[in-house]
Amino acid sequence: MKMPMGIEGLDRMLKGGLLEGRNILLSGPCGSGKSTLAMQFLYNGAVRYHEPSLYITLEETKKKFYEDMAGFGMDLHEAEKTGRFVFIGGPIANIRSYMDKVDANFKNMVEEIQEVVKERGIKRVVIDSVNLLTMLAKNDEERRNALAMITNSLSALGCTSLLISETKEGSMDLSRYGIEEFVVDGVIVLYLVRQRNKFVPGIVIRKMRGTNHDKEIRYYEITDKGIVVYPQETVFMSIR
Amino acid sequence: MKMPMGIEGLDRMLKGGLLEGRNILLSGPCGSGKSTLAMQFLYNGAVRYHEPSLYITLEETKKKFYEDMAGFGMDLHEAEKTGRFVFIGGPIANIRSYMDKVDANFKNMVEEIQEVVKERGIKRVVIDSVNLLTMLAKNDEERRNALAMITNSLSALGCTSLLISETKEGSMDLSRYGIEEFVVDGVIVLYLVRQRNKFVPGIVIRKMRGTNHDKEIRYYEITDKGIVVYPQETVFMSIR
Amino acid sequence: MKMPMGIEGLDRMLKGGLLEGRNILLSGPCGSGKSTLAMQFLYNGAVRYHEPSLYITLEETKKKFYEDMAGFGMDLHEAEKTGRFVFIGGPIANIRSYMDKVDANFKNMVEEIQEVVKERGIKRVVIDSVNLLTMLAKNDEERRNALAMITNSLSALGCTSLLISETKEGSMDLSRYGIEEFVVDGVIVLYLVRQRNKFVPGIVIRKMRGTNHDKEIRYYEITDKGIVVYPQETVFMSIR
Amino acid sequence: MKMPMGIEGLDRMLKGGLLEGRNILLSGPCGSGKSTLAMQFLYNGAVRYHEPSLYITLEETKKKFYEDMAGFGMDLHEAEKTGRFVFIGGPIANIRSYMDKVDANFKNMVEEIQEVVKERGIKRVVIDSVNLLTMLAKNDEERRNALAMITNSLSALGCTSLLISETKEGSMDLSRYGIEEFVVDGVIVLYLVRQRNKFVPGIVIRKMRGTNHDKEIRYYEITDKGIVVYPQETVFMSIR
Amino acid sequence: MKMPMGIEGLDRMLKGGLLEGRNILLSGPCGSGKSTLAMQFLYNGAVRYHEPSLYITLEETKKKFYEDMAGFGMDLHEAEKTGRFVFIGGPIANIRSYMDKVDANFKNMVEEIQEVVKERGIKRVVIDSVNLLTMLAKNDEERRNALAMITNSLSALGCTSLLISETKEGSMDLSRYGIEEFVVDGVIVLYLVRQRNKFVPGIVIRKMRGTNHDKEIRYYEITDKGIVVYPQETVFMSIR
Amino acid sequence: MKMPMGIEGLDRMLKGGLLEGRNILLSGPCGSGKSTLAMQFLYNGAVRYHEPSLYITLEETKKKFYEDMAGFGMDLHEAEKTGRFVFIGGPIANIRSYMDKVDANFKNMVEEIQEVVKERGIKRVVIDSVNLLTMLAKNDEERRNALAMITNSLSALGCTSLLISETKEGSMDLSRYGIEEFVVDGVIVLYLVRQRNKFVPGIVIRKMRGTNHDKEIRYYEITDKGIVVYPQETVFMSIR
Repeated sequence: MKMPMGIEGLDRMLKGGLLEGRNILLSGPCGSGKSTLAMQFLYNGAVRYHEPSLYITLEETKKKFYEDMAGFGMDLHEAEKTGRFVFIGGPIANIRSYMDKVDANFKNMVEEIQEVVKERGIKRVVIDSVNLLTMLAKNDEERRNALAMITNSLSALGCTSLLISETKEGSMDLSRYGIEEFVVDGVIVLYLVRQRNKFVPGIVIRKMRGTNHDKEIRYYEITDKGIVVYPQETVFMSIR
Repeated sequence: MKMPMGIEGLDRMLKGGLLEGRNILLSGPCGSGKSTLAMQFLYNGAVRYHEPSLYITLEETKKKFYEDMAGFGMDLHEAEKTGRFVFIGGPIANIRSYMDKVDANFKNMVEEIQEVVKERGIKRVVIDSVNLLTMLAKNDEERRNALAMITNSLSALGCTSLLISETKEGSMDLSRYGIEEFVVDGVIVLYLVRQRNKFVPGIVIRKMRGTNHDKEIRYYEITDKGIVVYPQETVFMSIR
Repeated sequence: MKMPMGIEGLDRMLKGGLLEGRNILLSGPCGSGKSTLAMQFLYNGAVRYHEPSLYITLEETKKKFYEDMAGFGMDLHEAEKTGRFVFIGGPIANIRSYMDKVDANFKNMVEEIQEVVKERGIKRVVIDSVNLLTMLAKNDEERRNALAMITNSLSALGCTSLLISETKEGSMDLSRYGIEEFVVDGVIVLYLVRQRNKFVPGIVIRKMRGTNHDKEIRYYEITDKGIVVYPQETVFMSIR
Repeated sequence: MKMPMGIEGLDRMLKGGLLEGRNILLSGPCGSGKSTLAMQFLYNGAVRYHEPSLYITLEETKKKFYEDMAGFGMDLHEAEKTGRFVFIGGPIANIRSYMDKVDANFKNMVEEIQEVVKERGIKRVVIDSVNLLTMLAKNDEERRNALAMITNSLSALGCTSLLISETKEGSMDLSRYGIEEFVVDGVIVLYLVRQRNKFVPGIVIRKMRGTNHDKEIRYYEITDKGIVVYPQETVFMSIR
Repeated sequence: MKMPMGIEGLDRMLKGGLLEGRNILLSGPCGSGKSTLAMQFLYNGAVRYHEPSLYITLEETKKKFYEDMAGFGMDLHEAEKTGRFVFIGGPIANIRSYMDKVDANFKNMVEEIQEVVKERGIKRVVIDSVNLLTMLAKNDEERRNALAMITNSLSALGCTSLLISETKEGSMDLSRYGIEEFVVDGVIVLYLVRQRNKFVPGIVIRKMRGTNHDKEIRYYEITDKGIVVYPQETVFMSIR
Repeated sequence: MKMPMGIEGLDRMLKGGLLEGRNILLSGPCGSGKSTLAMQFLYNGAVRYHEPSLYITLEETKKKFYEDMAGFGMDLHEAEKTGRFVFIGGPIANIRSYMDKVDANFKNMVEEIQEVVKERGIKRVVIDSVNLLTMLAKNDEERRNALAMITNSLSALGCTSLLISETKEGSMDLSRYGIEEFVVDGVIVLYLVRQRNKFVPGIVIRKMRGTNHDKEIRYYEITDKGIVVYPQETVFMSIR
């Protein structure tokens, strides 16, 4: 079954939306609108499709985040009141000590998430971002294990999730460590294509297991209605 | 003796198929269709050529994988019932502890595979992927030894095997660590050739001991019948 | 609420100025005028908008810095007398020992800043630069934590702050370690665009949460009135 | 005295062949035909020039290797029966333990080789490949010492030897570690020149002490008679 | 107050010379004439402007250096006799042991310099080069501290100083470790611009706090009168 | 005083030859003819100019080296008999143990050289190559110290010396570690300029303290008379 993201152009690129129960990596550089796009997926879920949605962040305060999203026409306070939107997070100054507090064990964080998901019947999840988690891992194996534990548990609970990954400026990488794309069922990439006098936004579906999808790099804009994707407009990159 | 892969265009590139008893590296970036191509090799083996086939994965759940493959017209439940298709795996959240459970010894995993191969008379094997195995190794020597142990034992049992390796986005590497290609008899590479507005799939046979083969980069498509290779259509890369 | 920086062209690019209470990364290579631009933000704040402003540096002596800024028409001695400009700093030869003196604890430095901010009702803050702080950190996690502690505490006190980051010559990086951009609400980048016979200054707003902004790389000059931004003049980069 | 390799085009490039008693590095990427070329040197030695020849491999099984070479028209079983061809090797799954078995001492392996050389009057030697040996070394010094020990002992016994080195895909390196070329008297390089739609084989003599030689990159083919070199046909590389 | 360097073209680029009491990084690759340019700054200071000048080197013998400079028309023996030129140095074979001798403490070297500066009323200082100092440091923090200690103490004594830094061949770096430019008030860069058949010298002022300056890359020559700068002639670089 | 190298074209590029008592780095990639050029400097010294000359190698056997040089018309046996040519060396399989034998102390090797120089009145020295020495050093500081100890002691004895350094294939580096050029008075570089179908030899004087010199990249050939330099023929490189 396909679950529409509620972003018209992107849903058309996806031939209807995301497959239910799958984990998708949403990657892109600083300032490409990853959080906004992910939030639209949740907001549309909660408000338009009546599916309980969960936003998990370790980096943003609720106050700032709600203000920013209001600027894109998403009233998260209202969404919250409907009981179909849950916000977990706020910035953690000292990650390690936070980890310690939740029982010195990454598993506890996963369990905490599982509990909320079950209790509230969550269908859509966003984790913004996985960079902090991967930064804490001591090596590639640990990194991969931490991510697999999260994605497996979310899949097992039937959630469709977006994992946000901030990529290095100017690179073509799909993720920070080149591990993240291993544990997911799909990868959507936002590029800021450097052109001679500006950075042009482009979105591409790099991988999407179990479904057909558009293959080209499409233009998008960050507007005061959030991300708008133009599925007919191609972005051209320079080729090295 | 040549063993057809059952992917017409690719078999033509291979002048009939793979040599029996050989280990082939199948490498390519995220989203290039490695798992699908490899599964077609097994499915065609089991269904069309009546050769028992074995799929080993440490990364995918059976449920998701069977769903995805159904989307390419491969009914793995049916294949399984014929007794000529075996699936081993499901995602392992914590690789090291799994390794430990199977006797803290990589050899046990190899022995387990050998047992299944003998018992079921397996002729075709896919390991999806070797990245996790190489990620666990502490250095190049260990990496090479682990791979050699697997490939040697599969060869000794007369299996023809595909080892899947996911390469780094945008690189021209043949494998993750540059070690994997040492222990195999052939290398088939999938590229997603970055062009100005999309990523075009291309397949090339980079090495194939003991047999002649096509040398050009050929176009392929991921269709709802799986991978289709066009052995007459060349893909052009930009040259740095 | 928007807070004008008092640099006309840049304020126009920002559609009025910076959002109050946000942390902005100001990055650029050696010699691009980061300190001058940041000081204009404070000087205009103190003198034109009557908002108490704080400049924190671990690298410059007050004497040299005041002399240099006088060359751009900013009389910091006068500004200081109004009670709306505070300078903390002077070069620290041995950073670690300084850190030790303030109680071997980075938190003390943060608390010291908080105290000044509260006492003087500071609204605008510049930290010049975060490179020394990140250089001291032992790993990416520590680096991120140190920066988060500063930005969170400044935000909590309602300050709008510029964090200066010197980038590597010739790179397109947004910061020294690729971590700094994680903990801020916006990123303004100064480039010295290498052209065939000189380095041409260009400024771009790479990210600015919660507000619309200009997306192109604009020309600026370092004049004897400080930085002058030309919001209509585009700078063209060569594309690799 | 010059010793013909028996590969006509290459002998012409070498103005007659290799100098007797010298060590030559034969390097190239995966799939460039290094083993085949080296085996032709030995096979021609044994069969055409009646010079006892020795092939040492730690990576290939005798069975597979003999099959593959039969595909190039070289009957190694027959060659063996003449008493002028010796094969040592077969794949070693665990190199370190093998090393240990031969007395935990690399010297023993060298002595073993020396013994065979003396006993059988070996004139031509191929070591396929030195990558495993260099992979085992802990640093550049150890790497260089291991290689020097082998090459010096072979030279001292009057053998002309080819040391095979697999280079990294897409690089212009002469060897894996950039150390190997130090301890040899000559370097022959096989390239797979990436062109827009295929990889074109090219061979060049990069260094050959004590003799004049062709300097251009020449075209070669892997045919069912083995490597055929076209000393008049130049391969053109793109220049970065 | 501006202090002329006595190199006409460069003084014109600097709109009169260097600001007194400032530390300038003079960087460039091997063979670009850094020592000669720096010595001209001192020689002109001592002979033409009657300002006591100090040359500190850990790499050159006095004999060789005086011979070389004589070749550029600078008679250092004579300059020394006027009492306005001081040479400290000569090559140190073992830096660490030298450091140890001067009390195992880098501070002693700084104090030694301070003493000479006070005693002789030194106004101009050259340190040739800072590479050895930075090479000794264990990490970026130590590196930065060592340099800051020197530059701060020289500034405090009112000296105008040039710190020579040799950059890596072919790079666009401003210094060896990318730290050096942090602790100075200005950066002058010498390039050897690789053109198709030679290396063309070019000089640019990359940063100069507190003063306006030329922004283009200008041509210069190493003549038998030392460095001659052509402030009207632009050097064109290829842009990647 | 200038000392002719006896290679006509190169002496013309040097405006007569090398300055006496100076240390020159001779660098270039594998196969560029470094040893041959350096030997010509010594052979001409011994035979044509009657100056005692010393060749030090840790890599070549006397037998092979004398054979190779005979191929360039240099009869080293004869030269030796005149008493004006000394050969020290032969390949050292295990460098560290050699170092140990000569008293576990690098200084002893230097003293040994000094003794020979004094006893035989050596004027010209070649060390082929410094790569092994630098490879043994544990860090940049040790590397620099070892080289400085050698060059200082040779200079002190009035020797003019060439230090051979093999550079990495395809790089523009001046030496293996980027340290070697620090401790010398001049740098001569041999390039093998990659052109579309071959590697063209080019020689350039990158630095030569105390004397004027040619600045262009000149063509040279490796002939049966040794290196021949064409000081009027320019080699053109592609510029990235």
